Order: sequence, then structure tokens, then C-alpha cells
Amino acid sequence: MSFSSSSSSIHPLDEALALTPSSSSPGQYAGQTHPGYWNMVGPFGGITAATLLQAILQHPDRLGDPLSLTVNYAGALTSGAFTVQAVPVRTNRSTQHWTLSILQSDAEGAQVVTTTGTAVTAVRRDTWSVGDVPMPEVPPPAEHKAIVAPPGAVEWLNRYEMRPIAGFIPRTWDGSGDHSLTQLWMRDAPQRPLDFCALTGLADVFFPRVWLRRARQVPAGTVSITVYFHATAAQLQATGSGYLLGQARGQEFRNGFFDQTVQLWNEAGIMLATSHQIVYYKE
Amino acid sequence: MSFSSSSSSIHPLDEALALTPSSSSPGQYAGQTHPGYWNMVGPFGGITAATLLQAILQHPDRLGDPLSLTVNYAGALTSGAFTVQAVPVRTNRSTQHWTLSILQSDAEGAQVVTTTGTAVTAVRRDTWSVGDVPMPEVPPPAEHKAIVAPPGAVEWLNRYEMRPIAGFIPRTWDGSGDHSLTQLWMRDAPQRPLDFCALTGLADVFFPRVWLRRARQVPAGTVSITVYFHATAAQLQATGSGYLLGQARGQEFRNGFFDQTVQLWNEAGIMLATSHQIVYYKE
Repeated sequence: MSFSSSSSSIHPLDEALALTPSSSSPGQYAGQTHPGYWNMVGPFGGITAATLLQAILQHPDRLGDPLSLTVNYAGALTSGAFTVQAVPVRTNRSTQHWTLSILQSDAEGAQVVTTTGTAVTAVRRDTWSVGDVPMPEVPPPAEHKAIVAPPGAVEWLNRYEMRPIAGFIPRTWDGSGDHSLTQLWMRDAPQRPLDFCALTGLADVFFPRVWLRRARQVPAGTVSITVYFHATAAQLQATGSGYLLGQARGQEFRNGFFDQTVQLWNEAGIMLATSHQIVYYKE
Repeated sequence: MSFSSSSSSIHPLDEALALTPSSSSPGQYAGQTHPGYWNMVGPFGGITAATLLQAILQHPDRLGDPLSLTVNYAGALTSGAFTVQAVPVRTNRSTQHWTLSILQSDAEGAQVVTTTGTAVTAVRRDTWSVGDVPMPEVPPPAEHKAIVAPPGAVEWLNRYEMRPIAGFIPRTWDGSGDHSLTQLWMRDAPQRPLDFCALTGLADVFFPRVWLRRARQVPAGTVSITVYFHATAAQLQATGSGYLLGQARGQEFRNGFFDQTVQLWNEAGIMLATSHQIVYYKE
């Protein structure tokens, strides 16, 4: 598999999520890192999480839609081929439990685990429903300017349109930070209809909370992320290529790790997903 | 293994967490459900999560202290023996990634997965640290009455001392609920010095948010829980058998599932853990 965006009309997200099922091992897929989603020393974490979800969605034995997904970044993927394993370890009447992993060959040819995870898919039924965290009242997307990634920035930033509302990356790294709350409008770039994999990627676009809280740019990287999916496939479809309002906040920064809580609403104010992650930081 | 609390001076939590390592399979342990932590149709979810963490803590190859733990409740454990598997799938310089499962024999003698999970342990280093969610200002534990579980209540409720501050179980199930926020002081009963396993159990004591939000008691059960540990072992030790302030809130209730966010502080106002779960509910 190779990617040449100039000759392709396939969206880069769909290119990145392309998986080839193994003919001999059910739930095993071959994939390849995509240069369009490259981060500092490996792929953008959101694309890795989305890839694991994609393996579930392609699995012939899948029951229902994504309910929860946890992905642990054990080691950076290197550029090139990888293997995804998605195993439905238990299927109940309306829920199904998955174990997930990504493997890559190391320099000696041995298979190494780069990523672990678990997920639950579920058949959703109409029930009493209510949102208990209303979408913040903010001006619409058109009233906020989209950021332009500076030259030399990591490539994956160009795959998202981000229109910051509050708490964006500090302009000066002077140690003056006093909060960790970010709000922004965002969507895939170029535009693409929302689905569960795209939503997973969008849950991880927030820059490290420690940069905002400290107004200091220290090395940082996600160790583990969890996404809870509240939206039905129909609600994602209705969201289309519209913007999501993303909100992220740190709760505790201590001894090299902080946590982040995330909420994602569509423009109609429907909460599509909530997410959490624990993130390493230095110094 | 059998448990007779009358003749034992071992704390019920330590009885419940007793695991016997397999002599042939590293990371495999034999355990047994404990009647003192029994819920409706299986053990209290918090004790199951704590048991998986205990397997990691007993593992001879463990690196560092708990950083994150995700546990997925695939099926109810039945009363009796079970097998725990804790596998360190990747060990880095300062983090270690674990996959977890609990297995039980079904009626035909086949091994069935009841629980899956992943965890990360980490060597914590002193760094710049700050709490970004201060502990709510509430009256001290002595000013709130401990609840007494009514006759016929599930047994595990008697293993925790709970002193509700706000948002406790509705007195009348009249559909009048209008929020999902609970605050309470809590600790193990009888008192027991806090450690990572006890903290894990305490992260799951909150009754289903849907009961509070609706003032209606519908069937509900945790599908997946994640705990992020912010405390060091020394901070847990300093907390001793003091109370924790627990705060829980639902964010979105939709189509049979809601999520819950949790914060746990000690009496000194130090945030020890944050936690999240996604919970099934009926109707």
C-alpha cells in the first residue's frame, strides 16, 4: 500500500484507516502508517485509536455500534507496515467485548506490541435520555478564525480544521498559565462526513493541557485514552461534515502525568462523545 | 479458600483480594469471590477491579506503581473460584503496559472470559505539579451521618462507611430528579489503611447516576470503568484510614447507557484519583 494524495480522491482519513483482512487469521489486519497523520516520533494518537476501532467495524462478527474504546500507547509506531488484532472475546445479547492490539516488527524482525486496547460495542435501544452537561454558549464557527499550522509543524495538524474559541496554545511561553480549559470548533480537513472513526480522532486533537496550564512547552505524550460514544450512527450521519465543539480540561497534574477530560458536541448541541486521557509530561 | 469473618482478624478487603499465584504460569492467579462484597448478581464491580490491580501488584516483574486501569465487565462472575491473568506485554524505561482478564468455568467446564482490562504502571518522578480541580468546600465527615444499609440491601454496602453530603439516593422514586451530582465522605468499613486496591474499590461506590437524575430506580450496571491514579504510595499511606471526599456526576444519558465522572480527594484536599465509567440502564 502506498499513498499519493495528488493522484487520489480518497480522503486522507480513509487512506490512513485502510486495513486488509488476513485470509488465515480472523480479526487480523494489515495496515500502514500514513504520512498525512504523522506526529513527532510516530502517528498522531487519534489516528491509531481510530485504526483500532476500524478493525472492529470491519470484523464480520461485530455486534452493534461502538460504546467504549480504551487505547494504551505502549510504544511509538515506526513508519511503515503494522498488524492489527481485534478479538471479540465475549458476545452477550446486546453487548460485545473486544481486546485490541497493534504489532510491528522490530529491527531484528521480532513482533513487538506497540499498542493495546479494549472496546465494547452495543446494540443501542431507544430509552429515556437526557444530556446533563449542556453545550457551552459560544459564537458559531464562522466567527472564529481557523488556525494555520506554522511551517515545520507536525503534519497531522493539517488534517484538522481548528477554530479556537478559548484557551488555545499560548503565544508566549513565559510560565504565566493559570487554567487548562480549551474550547474550539473543529472538523476533518478536508471536510468529510462524520463517523465513529473520525469522531475518535477528533477526541484526541487537543494539545497537551500542561502547555496551557504552565504556558510552558515541555515534552508530553498520551499514555492511555478512553472514548465513550453517546451518538448513534444516525446522529453522526446527521452531523455530516459540520463542526464539532470540543472542550478539554486537565484535572490533576502530578509527578509526570496529568489527566484530561473531553466533551464533544455537534453544532445542534448534541453530545456525541466524552473522552479522557492520561498524559506523560517531563519536568 | 473459605472466608469466615467471625474467626478472622483479616480485613474483608484483604480476604477478597487474596490471590494464589500459579506455580506453572507466571501472571496467573487463583482467586475466589467473597460473600462480603456480593452485589445483586455478582461481586461489587469495585472489588473485581481491585482484584485485577492486585494481580499486577503481586506480579514479580512489575515496574512502578499504578497509573491507569481499565476494567470491562463482560459478564457477571458467579459465586466461587476464578482465574486472574495479568500479563506485562511491554515494559519501557519508566512505564509498563498490562493486559488483564478474569476467567471462570461455565456449567460445561469450559473457561469463559468474565472480565477484560488493561493497565499501565509507571515510575513516578518529582515534577512541577498542580491540582486544577480544587476539592469542594464541604463540612467535615463528623458533621454528616453515616448511612445504614436497610435490611435486604446488597451485602457490599456494609463494606463502606458512606456519609452523604449532597445528591444521595432519592427518598421517593417519583421521577422528580433534576441533576446527577453526588458528594460524600467515605472509607472502608471497618477502617483500613488506604492503598491502591482500596482506592480502586472506592472509585466505584457511587449508586447509578440514572437513579438520581430520574428519581427512578431502573436496572443499571457498569460496563467499563477507568481509574487514573494521581497519588503516590506515600500519599496513600499518609491518608491512612481517613475519609475520602468522593464526587460523581453523569454527563450524558442516552439510549441505554450513561457515563459518570468521579473525583476522589483525601481530607487534606489532595486529589488521589479520577475515574470514569460507562453504565448500562434499562428503559
